[in-house]
Amino acid sequence: MSSAFHGGVQFSLFGESHGKGIGVVIDNLPAGEEIDLEKIAEFMARRAPKKDGTSTMRSEKDIPEILSGLFEGKTTGTPLAAVIMNTDQHSSDYGNISHIARPAHADYTGFLRYNGANDPRGGGHFSGRITAPLCFAGAVCGQILSHRNITTGAHIRSIKNVQDEAFDPVNITAKQLDAVKSRPFPTLSEKAEQEMREVINSARENLDSVGGIVECAAVGFPAGVGSPMLDGLENIISRLVFAIPAVKGIEFGNGFSCADIFGSENNDEFTVNNGKIATVTNNHGGILGGISSGMPIIFRAAFKPTPSISRPQKSVDFKTLTPEELVIKGRHDPCVVPRAVPCVESAMNIALLSALLEQPKI
Amino acid sequence: MSSAFHGGVQFSLFGESHGKGIGVVIDNLPAGEEIDLEKIAEFMARRAPKKDGTSTMRSEKDIPEILSGLFEGKTTGTPLAAVIMNTDQHSSDYGNISHIARPAHADYTGFLRYNGANDPRGGGHFSGRITAPLCFAGAVCGQILSHRNITTGAHIRSIKNVQDEAFDPVNITAKQLDAVKSRPFPTLSEKAEQEMREVINSARENLDSVGGIVECAAVGFPAGVGSPMLDGLENIISRLVFAIPAVKGIEFGNGFSCADIFGSENNDEFTVNNGKIATVTNNHGGILGGISSGMPIIFRAAFKPTPSISRPQKSVDFKTLTPEELVIKGRHDPCVVPRAVPCVESAMNIALLSALLEQPKI
Amino acid sequence: MSSAFHGGVQFSLFGESHGKGIGVVIDNLPAGEEIDLEKIAEFMARRAPKKDGTSTMRSEKDIPEILSGLFEGKTTGTPLAAVIMNTDQHSSDYGNISHIARPAHADYTGFLRYNGANDPRGGGHFSGRITAPLCFAGAVCGQILSHRNITTGAHIRSIKNVQDEAFDPVNITAKQLDAVKSRPFPTLSEKAEQEMREVINSARENLDSVGGIVECAAVGFPAGVGSPMLDGLENIISRLVFAIPAVKGIEFGNGFSCADIFGSENNDEFTVNNGKIATVTNNHGGILGGISSGMPIIFRAAFKPTPSISRPQKSVDFKTLTPEELVIKGRHDPCVVPRAVPCVESAMNIALLSALLEQPKI
Amino acid sequence: MSSAFHGGVQFSLFGESHGKGIGVVIDNLPAGEEIDLEKIAEFMARRAPKKDGTSTMRSEKDIPEILSGLFEGKTTGTPLAAVIMNTDQHSSDYGNISHIARPAHADYTGFLRYNGANDPRGGGHFSGRITAPLCFAGAVCGQILSHRNITTGAHIRSIKNVQDEAFDPVNITAKQLDAVKSRPFPTLSEKAEQEMREVINSARENLDSVGGIVECAAVGFPAGVGSPMLDGLENIISRLVFAIPAVKGIEFGNGFSCADIFGSENNDEFTVNNGKIATVTNNHGGILGGISSGMPIIFRAAFKPTPSISRPQKSVDFKTLTPEELVIKGRHDPCVVPRAVPCVESAMNIALLSALLEQPKI
Repeated sequence: MSSAFHGGVQFSLFGESHGKGIGVVIDNLPAGEEIDLEKIAEFMARRAPKKDGTSTMRSEKDIPEILSGLFEGKTTGTPLAAVIMNTDQHSSDYGNISHIARPAHADYTGFLRYNGANDPRGGGHFSGRITAPLCFAGAVCGQILSHRNITTGAHIRSIKNVQDEAFDPVNITAKQLDAVKSRPFPTLSEKAEQEMREVINSARENLDSVGGIVECAAVGFPAGVGSPMLDGLENIISRLVFAIPAVKGIEFGNGFSCADIFGSENNDEFTVNNGKIATVTNNHGGILGGISSGMPIIFRAAFKPTPSISRPQKSVDFKTLTPEELVIKGRHDPCVVPRAVPCVESAMNIALLSALLEQPKI
Repeated sequence: MSSAFHGGVQFSLFGESHGKGIGVVIDNLPAGEEIDLEKIAEFMARRAPKKDGTSTMRSEKDIPEILSGLFEGKTTGTPLAAVIMNTDQHSSDYGNISHIARPAHADYTGFLRYNGANDPRGGGHFSGRITAPLCFAGAVCGQILSHRNITTGAHIRSIKNVQDEAFDPVNITAKQLDAVKSRPFPTLSEKAEQEMREVINSARENLDSVGGIVECAAVGFPAGVGSPMLDGLENIISRLVFAIPAVKGIEFGNGFSCADIFGSENNDEFTVNNGKIATVTNNHGGILGGISSGMPIIFRAAFKPTPSISRPQKSVDFKTLTPEELVIKGRHDPCVVPRAVPCVESAMNIALLSALLEQPKI
Repeated sequence: MSSAFHGGVQFSLFGESHGKGIGVVIDNLPAGEEIDLEKIAEFMARRAPKKDGTSTMRSEKDIPEILSGLFEGKTTGTPLAAVIMNTDQHSSDYGNISHIARPAHADYTGFLRYNGANDPRGGGHFSGRITAPLCFAGAVCGQILSHRNITTGAHIRSIKNVQDEAFDPVNITAKQLDAVKSRPFPTLSEKAEQEMREVINSARENLDSVGGIVECAAVGFPAGVGSPMLDGLENIISRLVFAIPAVKGIEFGNGFSCADIFGSENNDEFTVNNGKIATVTNNHGGILGGISSGMPIIFRAAFKPTPSISRPQKSVDFKTLTPEELVIKGRHDPCVVPRAVPCVESAMNIALLSALLEQPKI
Repeated sequence: MSSAFHGGVQFSLFGESHGKGIGVVIDNLPAGEEIDLEKIAEFMARRAPKKDGTSTMRSEKDIPEILSGLFEGKTTGTPLAAVIMNTDQHSSDYGNISHIARPAHADYTGFLRYNGANDPRGGGHFSGRITAPLCFAGAVCGQILSHRNITTGAHIRSIKNVQDEAFDPVNITAKQLDAVKSRPFPTLSEKAEQEMREVINSARENLDSVGGIVECAAVGFPAGVGSPMLDGLENIISRLVFAIPAVKGIEFGNGFSCADIFGSENNDEFTVNNGKIATVTNNHGGILGGISSGMPIIFRAAFKPTPSISRPQKSVDFKTLTPEELVIKGRHDPCVVPRAVPCVESAMNIALLSALLEQPKI
C-alpha cells in the first residue's frame, strides 16, 4: 500500500521533500546484471532542474548513494537500496502556507488522510522530489532491459497547444529513442522545442504554469509477455504512471482517438515482415489482451500545469475553515513536463522488466 | 497474477468463453453486509446483450449462483464465490479461425503467452464474457458502498462522433447517477441516445463496428481516502479499468484537456460550502495526490471499436506464417460500449471499496 | 488476506462446511501441463473419510468439477477453477451448539472476527472440509512438479505416543515416497499402523480423540531455489501448513532437536557425491538460508487431537456469557492425522511450485 | 519476494554484512503515533553483541538513522526509512573462504541462487546483521502496540539442555514481560542464566557452539483479530519468525506436545472471568482458527547452534568440486540465542500490528 510496488520487480519508495533523505529499495532484480553508474547519473540528470528558465532554480544534485545490492559493479540479486540525502531545502519558503490548502495540491487531502501528522514541508511525501528515486529505479531497470536489446524512450508530445511530431508507431527505432535522450529539451522537432520554450517562458512571466503530454515507446520487447485482465501491460504501466504526481490521463496506441473511428479503420491487419508476424499499422500500441504483440509499445500521459503558481489564489484554511487569499512563494517549475520525461520512461522500464519477470517460467 | 486483484478487496476471476463456467471469488469483504440478490441481477442485466440490435444476439442469461460467503442474506466475511455456468456456446461458429489471428484480438499474443495451450474457443479467457463475474463483484461492492451513502454511476459519453452531455463535475447527484442506470441505453440525453443508436445500426449494416467513451462518477465518497504514489485512487481505478477488454485510455477530472490550459485555469480554488471544504470547480476529478477530496470522483475510459467485424480482413496464420484472408463468423456486438457501462462502474465500485478497506485503521 | 495465497502460484479458497459448495481458483500455473484427473481423484481420495473406524462416517464424495483452466487435458495457463458441491450435510446435527463455544474450535473467535455474521453451521469456513480444495490445488501442483522429476510424499510420524519409523533424511527415494501413498493408512511400518489404529479406536471408544505428527519430504527438487529472509522455503511452507486446521507446530530437518546439540554435531559437512555437491548428514532438512541445497527437503507438522469429542465439556454461551455444559453430537474423526497426510503434502507441493515460479528468470 | 513483507504493515529490508549500509523501509504505519527513539535504541541494544563472552567481540553500534516517516516525534503515515551504516567490517577475516561452503551456512545455496553474483563477504544478505533493521521495525511496531496496551516479550526458554522456567500461559502479565527485557541475559530464572552462561562458555572454549529455544508471548491483544486459512496469526507469525536466520522450528501454545495427549486433555474449556470469556487452560496459545482468543499469545522458536565454529570442518569448494578442510576465522557468537530474543519479539510485534491493520474496517 501507498509507496510500494509488488510485481515481478518490487520497490519501496520513501522520503519527504524536506526530510533527511529520500530513496528506494528495489527487490527481486535478477542477479549478475552490470550496472553502469555513470549512465544512471545521466538518466537522473535528465530529471534534475535546468538552469534555462524552464524549471525551478533549486539545485537538486540528487546523487544517489547505493547502500546494498551492488557488488563489483553487478546486481547481487538481493535488495538494491539507494539513498539521496536532502541538502538544499529552504523550509522557510513554505512556512506560511501550512494550513491553507494550495489549489491542485494534496495539502488538504494529505492532512485528512494522515490526521494532520504528515510532514507538510514542501509537500512532504507528495512532493515531486520522490520521483528522483523512482527515476533511479527506472534507470536500473532500463539497463537490465538494454542487456536484452530492449530500448525505451520518451519525448514531450505537447506543451499546452504546441505539438511535437509523434513517434512513428510502426517504424520507431532504438536509435531514435536514444537520440531524444541526449537533447536538453526532449522533443523530436527543434521547432517544437523553440515554441514550447516560448510558451513556458511566457507562462512563467505571467506567474502562471502550463502542462503537456509525454509520449513513451519501447522497441525490442518480445511478443507474448503480459497477462489478460488484472496484470496486463496496460494495467501495470498505468499503475506506475499514475505514481508520478500531476498525471491525469494515460492512453495506449491511438488511445482516445480509437473511440472515434470504425473497427475497420482501427483493426491492425497482421502481416509477415522479415519472417516475423507484425501488424501493418499499430493502433493497438503493441499490446493486445494485455500481452505484447512484438510491435512498438506506445503510450501517452497527460500532465496538468504545475499547481504552484505565484499569482494570488483563493483558498481556505483547512483547520479553521476560513477563506484566505494565498500567495505561494518559493521556486517552482512553470512546467514539469520536460523533467517528467525520464519519470515516464522509468514507469515504462519498471513495468516492462516486471512483466518479464512475472512470466511463469520453470 | 493475471486475473487476481489483491487490494483492500481481493478477487480472483476465472473462466473461458466456451468452458464449463465462469466466476469469481471475492475475499476480505466486510462481514454482515446485506446483499440484495435482485439488485445484483438488475446490475448484471445491464451488461447482458440487448435484443435491440445494438449488441450480439447471443442470449447470455448469466445468472450467478452463489456458492459461499452469503448466509441469511448477509456477507459472512469469508470468501464470496459466484459461478455462472456456460450454456449457450456455439463452438462451431469459431471453428475455422483457430490459427488465423483476428485483428485487434488477443489470438496471436495469447498463443505466444501460453505456448499454444490456452483455450482458443471464443477468445477463451480473453473473452468479454469474463466481465460478467467482474460485474458481479462490482455489484456486490456497490451495495456495500451504498450502505455508506456512496453512489456510483456511469453513462455513455460518446459513441464515435456522437456526444452525450457530460456529468456536471461539481453538482452531479446520487439521484442523477441512479436515474441513468434505469435507462435501457444509458445516456443522459435522449437525443444522444437516438443518434448513437443510429451510428451503431449503421455500423452493423456496414459489417463494421464503433467504439466510444464511458464516463463514470461517484458521489458521497468521504474525503481523505487513498494514498500517494502507487496506491492512489487513480492507480487502483486505472488498474481495474484496464481489466475490461477494449479499454485503451483513461483520464480523471478534465483529463487530457488539462494539458492544454494554464495552471491558473486548471487549479480548483477551495471554498467552504455548507460548512464543508469544497472546490469551486472540479478539474481534479475528486482526487488530489491519490486521495479523495470529497468532490465527485470522475473519470472517462475510451473503448476501441469491437474487433470482430464481419467484413473480410487480411491476416496471418500464426502457426504457418502464411497470409490469409479472414472472415469472422458468429454473432458480435457492433459496439460494446453500452454493455461496458456497468463494467466501468464495477471497476469504480471495487476500487473505492478497496481503498476504504486499505485505510490503516486500528 | 484470509483465504488467498499470492506467491509464484496463486490460489483463492472458498466455501463453508454446510454452504452450497467449496472450491478453489488457482492462478499463474504454467501453461501446457498435462493433468491426469484420475490421479487427482486418487490424491483426494486419500483425504476422504475412511470406513475403517479411524475417521468420521460422513461420506464426502468430494468429486471436484473443473470449470476452467483445463483444455484438452492440459493447463491453459489461465485460472484453473474447481468446485465441489456440498451434498451430504446434516445441519440438524449442529443445531444446538450455535452459541456455545466448542472448546479448541473457532466458534467464539470466528463470531468475534465476523461480528456474528459468519456461517456457523459445521464450522463454516473454519471447517476441515476446506482442505478438500486445498488438496485439489496440491494434487495439481504435485503433477506439475512430477513433470520435472520432483516427488513429494508424507507419512504419519506418530499418533499420540506411537511412533512410525522416520524418513531417512539422506537416502529417502521417490519410490519410497510413492509407496506410502498407496497404503490405506500411510505409515512406513506395518507394526506402527497396527498400534496407531488401536490408539485411535481406543480413543473413539472413550469418546475421546488423539493427535499426531505428519512428516513430509521432497526429493528431486533442484538446489538453489528459494530466497533469504521473508520468502525462504521455510517461510512459504510454514505459511501454507498453518492453513491446515489443527496444526500447532512445524519443524524443518532435525527441527527442535537442533536446539539440544552442539554446532559440531549439527553442521552438515559438504561432500561430493556422484559428481554433485551433497551433505553427509541432513540436519538442515534440505534448506539453507531459505534456499534448497539439493538434499531431500524434510519437515514435520504437529496436529492437535480433534477438538470435537463426544464427552460432555464445560463451556460458555458467548452471546449470553452463561456457563453451559456442552455435548457435541454428530459424526467426528477421532483422529484427523491420517486424512491430514495429503493436506500436508499439498502444502509442500504448492510451496515448491510457487518457489520455482518465483525464481527471477528472464 | 525475498526481503519484503506485504501485510497490514509492509516492510522492505536491505543490506549486506560488509556493504555500505543496511536498513529497512516500513510502509502503511498508522499516522500520528509517537515514537520514543531512546526506547528504540534500548530495544536494539538487546540485539547488539555483548562483552560478556556469550557473543561475538565485534562492536556493532548499529545506531539507525531515520531518513523519513517521522515528523515532530510522530509517524507521518508515509514510509518510515531507517539506515544503519556499516563501519566495523573486517573483510579480510573472511577472505579465504569464499568458495568453500561453510557447513550450515548459505554460501553454497546463495551462490547457486544468485549465479555467483551475490556479495559473499560475511554472508552478505544472509548475515545475521540484517536482523538489526528487522529489530528496528519490530521496535517501532511494538511501540504502536503499546499505545493500545498490548505488551509483548520473550525469554530464552532453553540453551542446549538447560531449561528456563516457562511463561505461565494463562497468567503471564505485561509486567513480567517487561521485566525480562531489562535483564542482560533474558531468562526468567537466575539459576538458568548461570547454567546457560556456563554451557555457552564451555562451548566457546571447545571451539564449538550451541543453540536453544526462545519463548515469546503477547498480552492485551484483543480477541477476534486474525483470519482463517492463509492469513491466520500462526501463518503470519511463522512467516516472520523464519526470516530470522537459524530458526528451524516454531510451535504455538503447547505445540508439538499436543500431539501426545488426548483431546479431553488438550481442549481448553471456556469460562467467564471478570465478565469476559476466557479459557481455563491455554494449550491453544491464544489462537483458534487463526484468530486471537483474548488469551495470551504464546509461541516458541528453535534456533540451531551457530554454524560458524572455529574447529576444522570437512567441506567442498563449490566452484571446483574439490574436498577441502575448512577453518573459519573471525569472531563468532558461540550462541546466537540471547541476541535472538528481541528478533523473535520483533517478529511477534510486526505480525500483531499487521493483523490489526488487516482487519477489514470501514
